[in-house]
Order: sequence, then C-alpha cells, then structure tokens
Amino acid sequence: MKPPPGEFELIDRLCADLRLSRRTLVGPGDDCAVIRRPGSPQLFTIDSLVEDVHFKLAWGTPRQLGARALAVNLSDIAAMGGVPTTCVVNLAVRPGLTMAFFDRLYEGLTGAAAKADVDLVGGNITSADQLAITIALLGDVRGAAMRRDRARPGDEIFVTGTVGDAAAGLRILDGKLSARGAARKFLVARLLEPTARLAAGQKLARLRPVPAAIDLSDGLCQDLGHILERSGVGAEIDIETIPLSAAYRAVLGDNRELALSGGEDYELLFCLKPGYSEARLARYLGVAVRRIGRIVAREHGLMLRDRHGRLRPPAGLAGWNHLRAPVERGK
Amino acid sequence: MKPPPGEFELIDRLCADLRLSRRTLVGPGDDCAVIRRPGSPQLFTIDSLVEDVHFKLAWGTPRQLGARALAVNLSDIAAMGGVPTTCVVNLAVRPGLTMAFFDRLYEGLTGAAAKADVDLVGGNITSADQLAITIALLGDVRGAAMRRDRARPGDEIFVTGTVGDAAAGLRILDGKLSARGAARKFLVARLLEPTARLAAGQKLARLRPVPAAIDLSDGLCQDLGHILERSGVGAEIDIETIPLSAAYRAVLGDNRELALSGGEDYELLFCLKPGYSEARLARYLGVAVRRIGRIVAREHGLMLRDRHGRLRPPAGLAGWNHLRAPVERGK
Repeated sequence: MKPPPGEFELIDRLCADLRLSRRTLVGPGDDCAVIRRPGSPQLFTIDSLVEDVHFKLAWGTPRQLGARALAVNLSDIAAMGGVPTTCVVNLAVRPGLTMAFFDRLYEGLTGAAAKADVDLVGGNITSADQLAITIALLGDVRGAAMRRDRARPGDEIFVTGTVGDAAAGLRILDGKLSARGAARKFLVARLLEPTARLAAGQKLARLRPVPAAIDLSDGLCQDLGHILERSGVGAEIDIETIPLSAAYRAVLGDNRELALSGGEDYELLFCLKPGYSEARLARYLGVAVRRIGRIVAREHGLMLRDRHGRLRPPAGLAGWNHLRAPVERGK
Repeated sequence: MKPPPGEFELIDRLCADLRLSRRTLVGPGDDCAVIRRPGSPQLFTIDSLVEDVHFKLAWGTPRQLGARALAVNLSDIAAMGGVPTTCVVNLAVRPGLTMAFFDRLYEGLTGAAAKADVDLVGGNITSADQLAITIALLGDVRGAAMRRDRARPGDEIFVTGTVGDAAAGLRILDGKLSARGAARKFLVARLLEPTARLAAGQKLARLRPVPAAIDLSDGLCQDLGHILERSGVGAEIDIETIPLSAAYRAVLGDNRELALSGGEDYELLFCLKPGYSEARLARYLGVAVRRIGRIVAREHGLMLRDRHGRLRPPAGLAGWNHLRAPVERGK
C-alpha cells in the first residue's frame, strides 16, 4: 500500500492557491486563523484526536479523552494569546462503544469546557470505523495575537514548563520505556491530561513587541522549525538548558532526545527581545520559564549546541509527525 | 459487536447538561449555533463526510467530493438564512491515496469556497483508517436567523426544489435501483453535487414573522420531525403534493417512499403563516417552491395524507440516520 502524502506536503499544497478575502487577517500556517470582526479579531482553529493514532482506549478513561480533545484545541488559542469562547464537536462513533462510555467522554469534554469558560454550542455525530473527536474552537483576541512569523535574529527563545514528558508517557504506555510509581504516573498524566497554557499565553501577548509563539504539539525541534520557516530565520538551541521534569530525569536520565523531538507537551515556546530574565518571566506568567536558545540568521538553520559548545543539526528531521510515524496500531 | 448508541440519543445526552454563557443565543439542536457578537450574531456549524459511510471513492471524482464536503455545511448556513464566511478543514488521510487525489479534492473544496465567497483559513491533517473530511463553518446573520423552534399551528409547510433525488441517486450507485441516461445522471448528480440554497435561505429570513426552517439532509419526515420536536407542534403532509423531479418519476414512478424518507437533497423546508402562494414564493426565492402541508397541534404528531384523504403515520421511523442504517460497506 502506498503511503499517503506527508502532512506538510499536503498543507503546503492546501495553502498555495488560497484566495482569501479581506476578512482574513492570518490564514493557514499559524496555530489559529485570525479573522477580522467588528471590535476585535477572532481566532479559529480545528484539531482532532483519532483512535489508534493519537490514543488507545486502554490508555486512560473516556473522561480524560474528552478533556484532552478540547485541551489540544485550547492550546492553539493559548499559542496566539487568545481567550477561547465557543466550540463545536464532530464525533465519529465506531461500533462497540456504550452509552456509558459517551456519557463519561462528554463529562470530560463539558467539564474542560466549563473550566475554560468555553460554550459547547453544537456538533455532529457520524458513524465510522474509528472513534475520532474533532473540535473546532473560536477565541477572542484582546489586544494582539502572537504569531509564528514574528521571530527576529537576536531574539531569545523561551519555553514554559518542561518538555519531553508526554513523549515519555507515550512510550511508557506503549511498553517501550519502563517506569514505575510517581514518575510513571506523572509522565502518563502529561500525555493524557494536558493543560493548555491559556493564562500564560494571554499575558505573553501583552508584551511589546508581541512575541512570536507556538505551542509544543509536534515536538520542540519541529515546532520551533515552524517558527523559523514562517519568520525566515534560524535558531541555536542550548541542549543543556532544555527544562526536564524530575520524572523525565528519573526515567531517561540525561538523554534529551525525547525532549527535543517528542510531541504533545502543550507548553508554549516564544521568542523575546533580550532583556527578560527567567525569574521575572516566571513570576509574570505564573509558570516556570527557561531560556533555551536564540534566533539567528536564516542561513544557520536550526542547530543544537551541546555542553561542550559543539553545534549539530537535530537528529533526522526530528519531531513527531503522525503521518510519518504513527503510533503502532494494537488492534 | 454491540451497535453504537443512536445518533439522537447521543445528541440528547450531549445537550442535556450543557451550561451555556450569555454569548450563546442558540445552542445545540438547530442547523447552526448562533453566537452573540458585536454588530450582528454569528453562525457556527460542523459537518463531516466519512468514506464508506457518506461516500465511496468509486462513486465520483475527488473534485466532487471536496465541493460536496463544503456544500453540506453551506446548507446548514442556508437553513438559518445566513451568509457563510469562513471555514477550517480537518482532513483524515488513509493510506493508498495520492497527492494528485488530494490536489483534485482541494480544487473541489477551494472552488466551492470561492463560489460561496468563503475563506478557507486553516485546517488540520491527521492519519486514519478512513478518509474523512470535516469542515467547521462560520456565517453571518444579516437580520434574523431562521430557527427550527418557530413553527406554529396554522403555518403552511413549503419545500424548495424536488425531494428524493439524492436518495434515488444513492440507490442507483449502490446497484439497488436501475436507471440509465439522463435520469441516472441527474439523480446521481443530485447526490454527488448538492447545492446549498443560500440565496433562497437569505431571502426567506427577511420575511416577517421569520419562518421556521431546516435543510433536508436526513430526509423529509425526519427533518420535519426536528422542527416539530423543537417547536412543540405536529404536522400533516399531503403526500401527493411532494415535489418530484422528472428523473425521479422516470425511475420510481409514483412511489413516494424515497421522497419521504431519503436524505441529502439539501433543499429547504420552511413554515409560513398562510397567505403566500407557491408562485409568489418561487419568484421571490428564485427556485421552485411547493406547499406540502400544514403545522397542527402537537397531539396529532406527524401524519401523512394520501390522495384519498386518508391519514397515516410515516412508515417506520422514516428518515436517513447514518448510525441506524449506514450505507452498506463495500470494502
């Protein structure tokens, strides 16, 4: 069977010929589209969780799954610095699932919506061979939207929280990594119960100049790559400064490959003019912040600096691409 | 294998516990949600086409499929009398499809978007076992939105165009109905190349009082049933007045069962205070219009009147419900 075209190839094609009206301020290629509106612009995004691609039912509870389906969308709003408002849900239902299952799934989804002050205003249900939850989410921009195309050479690169946790959790669930106790619990929860950095994103968007930003869904190198491509710049990352959780260290020690390439952490990566300390940003944003590198000229591409000061490009075309490397199917 | 819960059961559950904010003017249960916005309200809807459920690739071209995926969403906007503006697309990609296929699919989609003056502003691509195209669409309300819950006893019920054509087309493609030549071509095109009644919907929404309306996606009886349920009323349909195309008559003669129960025609059904003639409405809306019955008290339920004046309830719980009666799978 021929493999399907790559995700990015498809997106490039999709974006190439688009004719957009004056209504659209930012079209495809950022975390959300930005739409002109009386008053302030509106954010619009869509994301999907597909069984055996993004999750297996055995991994967790339907309640977790419902909340996670919204969280991955909320994170796109967070990456633009927006305030989420309204969503619609498309549910693809396969045979073999009970009403009790869907009750729990909805509890997770509506609970997460209530917590984020999001109205779930409608949806569509279809049958399918695979369970899939697709959510389209609207948000408000209060002030300015953070974009991927605003990074400039000289900017410093920061991330919130810790990275690589969700990828470690995925490998634990898939039996490729062994972990026990609190470390296992923490890492698995980072995959199954992600939290969108909404408050931090909204505060970041108040800084001037407005930071370039993205959420970490595909993996640090790949997501940073999106910023580099859209901004026409390069970057250097100091591998040693990448923030790792105690649980990650307990399971993987000092191996940072998962932290560089693993997706689904839903932390924010952002680029600021020099002058911000980690401590000051952490106080302002209410979350741990680490400076991990800097934006350089485009010609340098993306380079990783190890603790000896040696530069190397990321291994492979790092990152987590569902089409190139789907989760193994365990049907 | 246990069958999944029914679509309506699921929707009832979903809607039961929803807490909606003041932002939401109409929540789940209508063709679109209606969202408060500075200036005028906004419409928001989502719909999905799934391979082997709503289509088979052998039925038509990828270009038709892309256009149809948007049309089914446009029709929801038409049913509210809105003006579609902006959409995002979630594409679930299965192995075995080529880039040329997706190029054609996008041509169909973006062509239909351009024709409807809709901006395609973003999307998401995921791998899956089944090809599925899910679109979330926004629209403007200029004036008032038509709703399902506004039908009142005494109202007359009208439909645009002809009904049952798409269902006949589906059965022709599935080999359950034989047809040739122009009739076959017309009926199949009605399924594969639906047209949303946007202009007619916008004109209907200017009438006062604002008509109750719905688009015919699930089938005449089932969609009318949604209006009856939401409005708390009953209805009588004069079977003989249901508008049939020449192609439908050529293939099915005077058998009106498909016209009563078949889905996917994407015509508009609407309810008006008495006083409008079919000819006057047709001139005003720019499309053929037929009066097919009247709204009565809730206690009467939905009854069909035959040419002898005899009343009977619809056969079975008519209509086209993907979960209850999926298209046969021919993998």
